[in-house]
Amino acid sequence: MNSLANTPEPPYYAVIFSTMMSDDTVDYDEMSTLMTELASAQDGFLGVESARNAIGITVSYWRDEKAIKAWRNQMDHRVARIMGREKWYASYRLRVAKVERASAFEAESLL
Amino acid sequence: MNSLANTPEPPYYAVIFSTMMSDDTVDYDEMSTLMTELASAQDGFLGVESARNAIGITVSYWRDEKAIKAWRNQMDHRVARIMGREKWYASYRLRVAKVERASAFEAESLL
Repeated sequence: MNSLANTPEPPYYAVIFSTMMSDDTVDYDEMSTLMTELASAQDGFLGVESARNAIGITVSYWRDEKAIKAWRNQMDHRVARIMGREKWYASYRLRVAKVERASAFEAESLL
Repeated sequence: MNSLANTPEPPYYAVIFSTMMSDDTVDYDEMSTLMTELASAQDGFLGVESARNAIGITVSYWRDEKAIKAWRNQMDHRVARIMGREKWYASYRLRVAKVERASAFEAESLL
């Protein structure tokens, strides 16, 4: 998850998941890894970017709405109940957005 | 920047800016603060969320495309040349997306 996603030309979809953790972070890292594995295996998954310090932001990219719905159902059935019980999150925002245009930059030299 | 944005009901726009830093981070924090101040003062600015560890993700939220364009012009004229010279970024992705739906969660107790 610790790199930039090489997504195709727009349009495609972004799921922006912004979180603040509670004090209870037991099992969170394990679940986060599982979530990424589940998402990556879904049809229509295009990539994911994730960063955390004071807040966490994970943006996953998807081919279309259908792929997001399939992933959401996967998540609901297998993971969400556990997440709720463990109460990792003090608060979150979940936004589904259609990427309309994009640009990328790569430095010519990384020396 | 270190909290979740309380955005209005969709539709609105998200500018997803994902970055990897170069080794040269001189003046970066100062410029980052200035950028946030500039963005926050723009008409149509709705909020911003930002996190960084291995990569950085800053998502700013905007009322409409017109507001994004005005902000981009502001940025271009006053900041971008400096950014380019300083070469803070090894690589980045910039994605403009229309938020179609959103949900929020707040824990009832933060004890």
